[in-house]
Amino acid sequence: MRIICIGKLKEEFKILEKEYLKKIKPFTKIEIIEIKEAKGNSAKEILKKEEKEIVPKIKGNIIVLAEEGKLLSSEEFARIVEKSPEITFVIGSSYGISEAIKKKASVLLSLSKMTFSHQLARIILLEQIYRAYCTIKNLPYQR
Amino acid sequence: MRIICIGKLKEEFKILEKEYLKKIKPFTKIEIIEIKEAKGNSAKEILKKEEKEIVPKIKGNIIVLAEEGKLLSSEEFARIVEKSPEITFVIGSSYGISEAIKKKASVLLSLSKMTFSHQLARIILLEQIYRAYCTIKNLPYQR
Repeated sequence: MRIICIGKLKEEFKILEKEYLKKIKPFTKIEIIEIKEAKGNSAKEILKKEEKEIVPKIKGNIIVLAEEGKLLSSEEFARIVEKSPEITFVIGSSYGISEAIKKKASVLLSLSKMTFSHQLARIILLEQIYRAYCTIKNLPYQR
Repeated sequence: MRIICIGKLKEEFKILEKEYLKKIKPFTKIEIIEIKEAKGNSAKEILKKEEKEIVPKIKGNIIVLAEEGKLLSSEEFARIVEKSPEITFVIGSSYGISEAIKKKASVLLSLSKMTFSHQLARIILLEQIYRAYCTIKNLPYQR
């Protein structure tokens, strides 16, 4: 399993990221791939540059986080994790993610009707992955 | 504005809480009121005990976080914050929150179709409060 995201996580988020990665580790190999935020004169140009970096790194079942995506319950999310031997999650930047990558996705996922910063979205996604494994393995969720 | 919640935040969440409180401070007075997790033989007994602690501390527009609550967009959430001179948010424990408190709420709010730990819910709520003020005051969101 891998999570491709744009830009570095700020210090105050890193501690939580580390905590969830530690919790997920007994269940699956998980890798965070940070792509450098591209520079450009327009959102389109930036997204295109980021796309070039992202595409070679995606494999398996591709789940792209997108505002217009599907709202899933944690249970429904767990079923997708359960069925996928290999997953790549893609989290865009504040510019979003290119349409070409969205088209490659098997699921466009929206974490909420609310808009979250992409830094926070990374943490929420990790929590949901950990929660998914607790559900799949029928283990208690460790707070 | 006040947020009433059950139990202490773990260290790795506290850093983020502090960060968002710092960001919210220029916009409003905000207070986090932590109620001690009650002990009891049943969820009902625990919720009843917690209710006794919570009720004297609520005032203004009461918004209770509940799984069965309404899914709002960040924009809709901002409009509620804008219109309420005084708000009390209530976040329950893993046992939830008593029906009596839910009845006092003007809004039952669900952050997502997904289930989040109440520790993470506290952080998400703070991020949404900060985001709401950026929207209301038409200021850029500082990541």
